[in-house]
Amino acid sequence: MIGASAAADTADRTTDVEELDTAVEAAQSAFEKGRTAGPATRAAWLGAVAAGLEQDAETLVGIAVRETHLGVPRLEGELKRTVFQLRLFAAEILQGEHFDATIDHADPHWGMGPRPDLRRYNVPLGVVGVFGASNFPFAFSVMGGDSASALAAGCAVVHKAHDGHRELAVRTAETVTSALEAAGAPSGLFSLVSGRRAAEALVDHPLVKAIGFTGSTAGGRALLDRAAARPEPIPFFGELGGINAVFVMPNAWAARREEILTGYAGSFTLGMGQFCTKPGLLFVPAAGSAAEAGELGHVLAGALADFGPAQLLSERLHGGYSEAVRRLNASPGVDVLLEGDFSAAPAPTVLRSTADAVRNDPGILRQEMFGPASLVVEYGDAAELADLAGLLEGQLTTTLQAEEDDDVAGLAARLTDISGRVLWNGWPTGVTVSYAQNHGGPYPATTSATTSVGTAAIRRFLRPVAYQSFPAARLPEPLRDNNPWNVPQRVDGVWRRPSDAGVDAMIGGQP
Amino acid sequence: MIGASAAADTADRTTDVEELDTAVEAAQSAFEKGRTAGPATRAAWLGAVAAGLEQDAETLVGIAVRETHLGVPRLEGELKRTVFQLRLFAAEILQGEHFDATIDHADPHWGMGPRPDLRRYNVPLGVVGVFGASNFPFAFSVMGGDSASALAAGCAVVHKAHDGHRELAVRTAETVTSALEAAGAPSGLFSLVSGRRAAEALVDHPLVKAIGFTGSTAGGRALLDRAAARPEPIPFFGELGGINAVFVMPNAWAARREEILTGYAGSFTLGMGQFCTKPGLLFVPAAGSAAEAGELGHVLAGALADFGPAQLLSERLHGGYSEAVRRLNASPGVDVLLEGDFSAAPAPTVLRSTADAVRNDPGILRQEMFGPASLVVEYGDAAELADLAGLLEGQLTTTLQAEEDDDVAGLAARLTDISGRVLWNGWPTGVTVSYAQNHGGPYPATTSATTSVGTAAIRRFLRPVAYQSFPAARLPEPLRDNNPWNVPQRVDGVWRRPSDAGVDAMIGGQP
Repeated sequence: MIGASAAADTADRTTDVEELDTAVEAAQSAFEKGRTAGPATRAAWLGAVAAGLEQDAETLVGIAVRETHLGVPRLEGELKRTVFQLRLFAAEILQGEHFDATIDHADPHWGMGPRPDLRRYNVPLGVVGVFGASNFPFAFSVMGGDSASALAAGCAVVHKAHDGHRELAVRTAETVTSALEAAGAPSGLFSLVSGRRAAEALVDHPLVKAIGFTGSTAGGRALLDRAAARPEPIPFFGELGGINAVFVMPNAWAARREEILTGYAGSFTLGMGQFCTKPGLLFVPAAGSAAEAGELGHVLAGALADFGPAQLLSERLHGGYSEAVRRLNASPGVDVLLEGDFSAAPAPTVLRSTADAVRNDPGILRQEMFGPASLVVEYGDAAELADLAGLLEGQLTTTLQAEEDDDVAGLAARLTDISGRVLWNGWPTGVTVSYAQNHGGPYPATTSATTSVGTAAIRRFLRPVAYQSFPAARLPEPLRDNNPWNVPQRVDGVWRRPSDAGVDAMIGGQP
Repeated sequence: MIGASAAADTADRTTDVEELDTAVEAAQSAFEKGRTAGPATRAAWLGAVAAGLEQDAETLVGIAVRETHLGVPRLEGELKRTVFQLRLFAAEILQGEHFDATIDHADPHWGMGPRPDLRRYNVPLGVVGVFGASNFPFAFSVMGGDSASALAAGCAVVHKAHDGHRELAVRTAETVTSALEAAGAPSGLFSLVSGRRAAEALVDHPLVKAIGFTGSTAGGRALLDRAAARPEPIPFFGELGGINAVFVMPNAWAARREEILTGYAGSFTLGMGQFCTKPGLLFVPAAGSAAEAGELGHVLAGALADFGPAQLLSERLHGGYSEAVRRLNASPGVDVLLEGDFSAAPAPTVLRSTADAVRNDPGILRQEMFGPASLVVEYGDAAELADLAGLLEGQLTTTLQAEEDDDVAGLAARLTDISGRVLWNGWPTGVTVSYAQNHGGPYPATTSATTSVGTAAIRRFLRPVAYQSFPAARLPEPLRDNNPWNVPQRVDGVWRRPSDAGVDAMIGGQP
């Protein structure tokens, strides 16, 4: 393990349970020491980590290329995103939004009877266990969104490295712990562990108060069940992936068929299709003739003519991908629209089915193929789309490809029901880090009604505490009438915020 | 069942599984019909329910007195609280706080790369199952906090009646459904079911998206595990009760011993000790002499001299209470400070133990006695209190009785760790409904990091959805630039709220 003791892991060695205990106890100690730190101090810690990652970018990207087979531009972009995220979160906690500071002064005339002085704000949960994902070795891994949001909330983090990029994980953790130490953060605030035994012990540890996870549905569900079965159950914020259905409406199909198919081809093959937001399902109007049907494959083939396949993230994922595509292809009513292959760097595959077939077996719509493959489903009438959408499980995203005069009202309501994010004439790959982002969605897309991307992610690692009739001097800073940290306060039901000018200046100071 | 079909339950008849299915399906239909309603419409529904309950107050209180043995003043006060809560929630959703509307305009210069137009707000979860509590037949039952907050959020509610007040539940549900119908709410938005089979089927039903529960730890944990084991796990917002430890600091004890003991006696016997916020544990400095030790019992006896015992809520609870007190009394190191009894209307009991005894067996601190009994634990040195607090499980509340010059810093931090609400020189019974209230706390006090009392309770039944690049006319109202519902919007990171004058006028219009 890295960060909490001298017994450092290497890429070849996993953490034993005793070492895991040490890491969690050091994290708890760091959490307790660090929790009196104000937003400015905590923001400086996040900023130091961001600067450290930037400084080590060349080394880190070099290791990542070797371990993940993702290209340099993609990995450089991902690291930039990771650094930006840390700085945005730093700016967010400086604003103090996450405290949700709420002050009710004593009121003898309150409608249900006299009310005491009561003040509530959010405090960090404690030690958080974070599981890294294979497909984003920076942005959803060691210092990815879960770690950044937990640290921003004031929690300590014990990170379980993904086996797919162990050397990168160890090197990144060294950068992070050095930066935190140099910035004066308490020792143990962040540490890295590895291996399955440590992972299970992390979920079980009584001092661990929440888990952040990005990975497969099967693995995530097993850990979710484990977290729920503890003597003290803890929240499990799992992002388990998805299908990301796209619905092409008749008028859009008539107006921009080629453009849509080109966008689709680009999106489902981006990063070799190894995104949790890959569009794995495209509903299109059924072809009116055999010629029209044949055209679909030609356009897709054309759009992918210049596509250069690469290796998938790991051999294990390659095996899972091949099996998933073959299994779906073997389902009744599914055939091949664009033939790919399962070579080491597989050429993209597009399967085809029909509304009737998926009504007969909705399982066809629920088979994730993690790699460069997708399924096109032909429907007869746009009026059946809302019901077809009802066959889907929870989705991270759904997308409408529509013209202004397409009737999407019923379908859009259904998509809101099942999605974390709904797009209009876009493609779901590409998840910006911002205030409004929601990277979530009903189960099995995720295991909670929260986002793992964007500033709202910080809230996951907080819980409210109220203070009744406390003397002013003993109140936490965000709850004092004189508001020393200058945070937004809701006072007797009315929000009082730092002046917009002040907030604008603060945001202007961020990258 | 009441509300969704003609097959009405009576107080003597339970709901079968088929009827439960009908109720849930009607609730889903009502949810879908009702979700386009704006805050003004929904607030009017809540207001109609409040007015209906007010109008039927005499009848309802009469039934409640008979079924619960709680007195008229208490029940009238509880009904007033229930009505107030509905109106406060109506005012809250009119303000639009719960939407958390967040708008990020497209920004080509965003730090991690160009950002699309992205807008997020909260939508209701769908059908919510609510379990009523025995001890608050109005405020935590049919139209109590969970039902009110779920309806305010835009959800539909299927309420499982508590067996302890079935006739009241049926009559209250009739009032509620009539009021909703008269106000034009969709049929099925609220319904009542009863019996154990219906309860389990409610937790299992695929259309049910969350559970609100107030009750025992054992019952709550069983349902929590059931909710977690579903193919699609759902959030279980359980308030399971607690101990509500009070810590008397040395200077406070020296200065106001009699006042503290009198306040304690009044609080732990209020409502016959059948509150989840009853102070079940009082830490006081150890007596310096036998005379001093004897005085404790005398003061408590004096404070309770005029206490008039009443029957407990039910025979079942009476049995559980008697057993819990006897079991704790039989623990090594626990003796009787004030002898009560276990008659039909039991006289209060106070047990006594020591810091050494509870260190030896922390289970002594974790035994809830639901009724008019409490435990006094004597400690030697205030410096040991933080460690003693560390032996406690999660608490709805903890309380400090302290003077300005008592050193409470370490203890207060520990109490924040384990509590939902921390009081200073007060008593935990009495939970106001307001903006800042937090009626929650770490497990086993509750099963989630949320409150079940106060306006923040509404958030439990919402989840975020983001819309990317949607045409203005197709955006939900709270996310439009022209803000037709006049709700707070965070625009590009900066909150824009309706003018304070406007909000003040709105709040002024509420009771």
